[in-house]
Amino acid sequence: MTRTLPDRVRTDQLIAFCTAALVEVGMEHGAAQAAVEVLVTTDQLGVFTHGVRNLRLYVRRLREGGLDASAAPRVVKEGPSWALVDGGSALAMLTGKLAMETAVEKAKKTGVAFVGARNSCHFGAAGVYALMAARRDAIGLSMSNDVPSMTAPGARSHILGTNPLAFAVPAGEEKPVLLDIAMSTVAGSKIYQAISQGKPIPNTWIVDGEGVPTTDGGVYPHAASLLPMAGHKGYGLALLIDILSALVTGAASRGEVVSWIFGDQTVPTGHGHAFISIDPGAIVPIEQFKQRMDAMIRDIRRQPKAKNSQRIFLPGEMEWEKFDEAQRLGIALPDDVAESLALLAKETGVVAEPYFGH
Amino acid sequence: MTRTLPDRVRTDQLIAFCTAALVEVGMEHGAAQAAVEVLVTTDQLGVFTHGVRNLRLYVRRLREGGLDASAAPRVVKEGPSWALVDGGSALAMLTGKLAMETAVEKAKKTGVAFVGARNSCHFGAAGVYALMAARRDAIGLSMSNDVPSMTAPGARSHILGTNPLAFAVPAGEEKPVLLDIAMSTVAGSKIYQAISQGKPIPNTWIVDGEGVPTTDGGVYPHAASLLPMAGHKGYGLALLIDILSALVTGAASRGEVVSWIFGDQTVPTGHGHAFISIDPGAIVPIEQFKQRMDAMIRDIRRQPKAKNSQRIFLPGEMEWEKFDEAQRLGIALPDDVAESLALLAKETGVVAEPYFGH
Repeated sequence: MTRTLPDRVRTDQLIAFCTAALVEVGMEHGAAQAAVEVLVTTDQLGVFTHGVRNLRLYVRRLREGGLDASAAPRVVKEGPSWALVDGGSALAMLTGKLAMETAVEKAKKTGVAFVGARNSCHFGAAGVYALMAARRDAIGLSMSNDVPSMTAPGARSHILGTNPLAFAVPAGEEKPVLLDIAMSTVAGSKIYQAISQGKPIPNTWIVDGEGVPTTDGGVYPHAASLLPMAGHKGYGLALLIDILSALVTGAASRGEVVSWIFGDQTVPTGHGHAFISIDPGAIVPIEQFKQRMDAMIRDIRRQPKAKNSQRIFLPGEMEWEKFDEAQRLGIALPDDVAESLALLAKETGVVAEPYFGH
Repeated sequence: MTRTLPDRVRTDQLIAFCTAALVEVGMEHGAAQAAVEVLVTTDQLGVFTHGVRNLRLYVRRLREGGLDASAAPRVVKEGPSWALVDGGSALAMLTGKLAMETAVEKAKKTGVAFVGARNSCHFGAAGVYALMAARRDAIGLSMSNDVPSMTAPGARSHILGTNPLAFAVPAGEEKPVLLDIAMSTVAGSKIYQAISQGKPIPNTWIVDGEGVPTTDGGVYPHAASLLPMAGHKGYGLALLIDILSALVTGAASRGEVVSWIFGDQTVPTGHGHAFISIDPGAIVPIEQFKQRMDAMIRDIRRQPKAKNSQRIFLPGEMEWEKFDEAQRLGIALPDDVAESLALLAKETGVVAEPYFGH
């Protein structure tokens, strides 16, 4: 497929095109743009697996009924420091954004807040929601459950999703610390990469069909399960994430969740999420907090390096460098993302080229 | 050293003896017993590295001034959903207990609460505090910072503590789910064990003096650092734990913390902790929550087992089995714990035998 998009695209261009595609399948312009902005921020941070690349798949669900283009997530129950958001099968970026923003609002009043979400779907990169808190001088934690694809110590097959967890903490002059991780040792994409290169994989990545760790990536995914990071530690944390995302919110849990990619496209997936925001400024003077964050970041950065290592990165530092570059020069969309957008254009009838002119 | 304690000791006997030892070094009886109960619960759960075995070391600090026998931790600042506890260099079990109980009280009113603690010390096992929440039908998270002993990707040496994190979630008929983990791949004790058995260690446990992963346990700890669990994931989470425990609370952070074992015994260690409690009953009916917890636990337990695996354990299930056995038959204190208690008796002049008669 010949690449029709330029090597780098401007953020506003990308947002405009993607928004038009969502409007084409029935979404209201403001909601469409809000959802797209979440995905484009993800791409700016270089997390292309979770950005606009997936828009095509969301559009498929919107068309087949598993997502509702006209739905708007709303707070259905709340207290001073908590809220429950019902996504109503809206695009999950809207649900996640409302939930995290509600958590920050409440944390600014009471010091801390928990907001759960149900009737949602795949919400993209957990880190983007955590970042919404950090941008408002609050600490943000963000998590979601997903379809089981990961085993547990002693188990043969799927027990829990890879259930992502992210946090972001604001600093002063330094960029927020930002971590966004799945509870599996690696993502499935790393295994496909090893297969395509004909390489064996470490025996900490997957188990085979008998639940035994293997170095043969070829059994994935049809006869394999991902291994949790750090064994029982990743298993336990993934369980907590499912509990907070689903059992505390009334969302689908574990096997009740429908796969957003491979599952029935006509029914809601039922994902749940959980968001926590803490306002450090309620507890210590915010300027003191930020100064200590800056000092910590700088002190870690200047610690002695390991042999053959040039740098110690803070969590999120690699992503911020990509973000800055994307803002300066435009986002360098990888070919697979460009291809997905070309298909999106074709499938929605929204011609891409006019959006990316100069 | 001949073992003077019986093979199994009753909980009330162990509490009475240890309380007497703390009273002997100047603590008020009620406070002494409250602190000891935290440690004995830890031993009941089988986590002997963090129970009464360490009492001798706490007594040393109490005598030399680094801990204050007459201090009482107190809430120095608070809002509806948060509080800041100043430990005042009291025994950290008291600080942790007050902080977690305050978090649960507040969560019961507002749905969620964050309580930070400063001017504390080594608080033992993080899981015991999380459990205090679960016993009151609330979710508990508990964490602490510590002296740096763990490296980070790209670094040569110590960047962060192994910073423990625990959570506990109440169920209905089933025992609470309970996870208590450090952010390093393994604890130092596992390395000593491998050395004593003359075995090489996996290259994911430590780095040598140049920051390079090694299978030679012999370089630990003088010329080595622990590796974070799951690489950048454990590093990032350990950083978050230090931020919540210290930067949000005003406690000592990273290298500012004094080693409670090897550091100056006459000065406070300055540890910080953080506790979060979430009341699921504020958000969904508590009976529904508990039923779903029970159903989840039972469903995981009956999933197909891996080859050569007999069981899938829920987080905390092994500990609960030890707990039940300890309640039924008494705690089977390992020799090193019995020896530590014998030394405690000798050093405080509190004769042990009368406490453990039948």
